[in-house]
Amino acid sequence: MVVRYYETDQMAIVHHSNYIRYFECGRNEMMKKVGLPIEVMEANGFMLPVVSVELHYKTPSRMGDTLTIVSSIKKWPHAKLFVDQEIYNQKGELVCTGKVVLCMVDSVTRIPVRLPQLFLDKIAPYFTEEEKNN
Amino acid sequence: MVVRYYETDQMAIVHHSNYIRYFECGRNEMMKKVGLPIEVMEANGFMLPVVSVELHYKTPSRMGDTLTIVSSIKKWPHAKLFVDQEIYNQKGELVCTGKVVLCMVDSVTRIPVRLPQLFLDKIAPYFTEEEKNN
Amino acid sequence: MVVRYYETDQMAIVHHSNYIRYFECGRNEMMKKVGLPIEVMEANGFMLPVVSVELHYKTPSRMGDTLTIVSSIKKWPHAKLFVDQEIYNQKGELVCTGKVVLCMVDSVTRIPVRLPQLFLDKIAPYFTEEEKNN
Amino acid sequence: MVVRYYETDQMAIVHHSNYIRYFECGRNEMMKKVGLPIEVMEANGFMLPVVSVELHYKTPSRMGDTLTIVSSIKKWPHAKLFVDQEIYNQKGELVCTGKVVLCMVDSVTRIPVRLPQLFLDKIAPYFTEEEKNN
Repeated sequence: MVVRYYETDQMAIVHHSNYIRYFECGRNEMMKKVGLPIEVMEANGFMLPVVSVELHYKTPSRMGDTLTIVSSIKKWPHAKLFVDQEIYNQKGELVCTGKVVLCMVDSVTRIPVRLPQLFLDKIAPYFTEEEKNN
Repeated sequence: MVVRYYETDQMAIVHHSNYIRYFECGRNEMMKKVGLPIEVMEANGFMLPVVSVELHYKTPSRMGDTLTIVSSIKKWPHAKLFVDQEIYNQKGELVCTGKVVLCMVDSVTRIPVRLPQLFLDKIAPYFTEEEKNN
Repeated sequence: MVVRYYETDQMAIVHHSNYIRYFECGRNEMMKKVGLPIEVMEANGFMLPVVSVELHYKTPSRMGDTLTIVSSIKKWPHAKLFVDQEIYNQKGELVCTGKVVLCMVDSVTRIPVRLPQLFLDKIAPYFTEEEKNN
Repeated sequence: MVVRYYETDQMAIVHHSNYIRYFECGRNEMMKKVGLPIEVMEANGFMLPVVSVELHYKTPSRMGDTLTIVSSIKKWPHAKLFVDQEIYNQKGELVCTGKVVLCMVDSVTRIPVRLPQLFLDKIAPYFTEEEKNN
């Protein structure tokens, strides 16, 4: 993704709040790749509110930079989803790292639910049996 | 309202897209003053999507500026709501003017509806009988 | 460009303020295509503040939509740049149209300047001699 | 501060990215209270980029909510500024907590500098001698 002009601030760098949004874009991209876009997830009655976020800023980004977001689910999820995220710029420099924890709720009741089979089935191929049992 | 740091861009002024958001804040403030906050409107089954916006930028705003938004419904509304908006800074300078046209839709069907009596009753005291009939 | 989750609002559509940002993305994309990215423009000492914007919303966008922004400079610019913009969704539906007027200022003094030769040279191939003289 | 409509997302709650912005508003408010608004700080040649942020979401916020941000510098700062932040809603419920680490850089060179005396003088009254020596 390319840095957008309105994402810069008067320090002439991307405002730090945008990285939490880039992380979200990266996660949604990941969901699309595993075959379960967030809008399909929501159409199935599940929402994924964020529980916590941790961000570490390494290098500022500027207008014109092209950023790559790497998102990975490091451990097999049960009630919560732990996503590690890294953002790199076009020079390969690490711009930002973070950890995002999400839970899943029923869209109507907003009550937390376990991660549904529909989701687990999509990510299962990326995990070994051993990893799933930990 | 006070300009927020993240609203500035690398020209060190408020990014032009924020004024359309300030306009919305001003309209919601106006709705609160007439006794019908937008959240009450929505709780009653009505939503107010924006149909068109026109903005004219007069003077840039900077971090630390305090802005005042003046919102006025210039003519008695029927199917659409025409709101004139002006933003002034702490020195009394005109920062931005605009015109926003909104319609009202049923929250569920999203079908346009005439402006409901619940809304008209609230703004009626601000209009003369003659104005209402035009 | 793909609609981002945070760009939706509680009407479950893209908040109307984002289209003014999409327009900007479209213009910056256009600048890149003519060979003069906005960051190069700024590195040359010129900034392009927005003078006015007009937006007409036609169809709402939703999470998962892919939007295409068409930006065109309809007349040869002198002191101001007039850009017509249209946004279409993946079904080819017109989502939003608009007109944006920009001027050019010296980055340091912030005083308006005529559009510089460096810019005119890049867009010249897209205009006939007759159009340039109007 | 009052939740703004555009800050909500299609879950009909405030999008999680906004709290990092609310935190910033809270810190700027704190800076104003100690007599050193961020714009004065920047006018003196210092910028405060964010090094890391940690956010824990406790209760969702909705349109119409009034949020109070509590910001506190828990320990006497040397090279970095550690700010603890909490956001409460109008019912007194804890909405979000976080920790933000900032550093200070020279506006021109962007090289990190120790927190300047001009800043330390302003916050000194809030710390005991013992706290300052730790």
